[in-house]
Amino acid sequence: MTKPSRDGEGALGFDPAERSGGSIAFIGVLHSNWAPGGAPKNLRQSREAGGGGGRVVIDAPYRDGLRGLEIGQAIWLLLWFDRARRDLIVQAPRHAHGPRGTFALSSPVRPNPIAIEAVRITSLDHGAGEIGIDATDAFDGTPVLDIKPWLGGIDIPPEPEG
Amino acid sequence: MTKPSRDGEGALGFDPAERSGGSIAFIGVLHSNWAPGGAPKNLRQSREAGGGGGRVVIDAPYRDGLRGLEIGQAIWLLLWFDRARRDLIVQAPRHAHGPRGTFALSSPVRPNPIAIEAVRITSLDHGAGEIGIDATDAFDGTPVLDIKPWLGGIDIPPEPEG
Repeated sequence: MTKPSRDGEGALGFDPAERSGGSIAFIGVLHSNWAPGGAPKNLRQSREAGGGGGRVVIDAPYRDGLRGLEIGQAIWLLLWFDRARRDLIVQAPRHAHGPRGTFALSSPVRPNPIAIEAVRITSLDHGAGEIGIDATDAFDGTPVLDIKPWLGGIDIPPEPEG
Repeated sequence: MTKPSRDGEGALGFDPAERSGGSIAFIGVLHSNWAPGGAPKNLRQSREAGGGGGRVVIDAPYRDGLRGLEIGQAIWLLLWFDRARRDLIVQAPRHAHGPRGTFALSSPVRPNPIAIEAVRITSLDHGAGEIGIDATDAFDGTPVLDIKPWLGGIDIPPEPEG
């Protein structure tokens, strides 16, 4: 395991990958135009840059699970950022003023590197298990964990009171 | 493993828990007022019912990760629905017209039972690792996987074109 590389960063001292509470199954893979060193920072950047779309291929046993999804629909794509380190608990991103806790950041570096991406379906082939999505910031080859419908009535938190 | 219990449902024929692609670490636990048989169906129901708030307790090694979070802030709480079966790929929920694929549903039953909950922080004790949240639909004792900031510019998909 590498050491924290920027001032103020803090590591756990263990790798969360070795503290298993449960096991995840990879249900497919994401194909994108991005590789380490050249990916957009987030979905907004991906959309602004153009060429940021992606293609999800779901493994055969899971393809029946796509029944009912439609082109144009907004979904959550859950990904496993398998190339991110998992032990940094305080990080000093270049854009921030000083170090911040991992849970206050959208960084891919986190104890469980699960990414949630709010995207739209641009194409759909149920038989082949292929889903085109309008944007992604994830590297080509990233494992897929789940797809869920995006629901405005639930996925937007209520306005703060007061 | 139990068999599908409603007409039209379909099972994988294996338990995704046994097809491990990666291991997840539990970073804390959720305390709520809900138990099997008596939980709201989603966050909206939880908020309408009242008494739906919860309390997250983050394990000691991960508490530095909370630095920078604030009361009132909107966050994603990622949970592991450890009491849900994982092998149903086509489901026939009572509210739907006919069976639908798991990925077209928000059901807790899915190959990787990861829940994402858009909530607001109502209280915060960094030292004790305690975070109050305004609503949850999860059972008391549900394992916590992650906390991320909720960001309107990223977590709301763009309007469909045309």
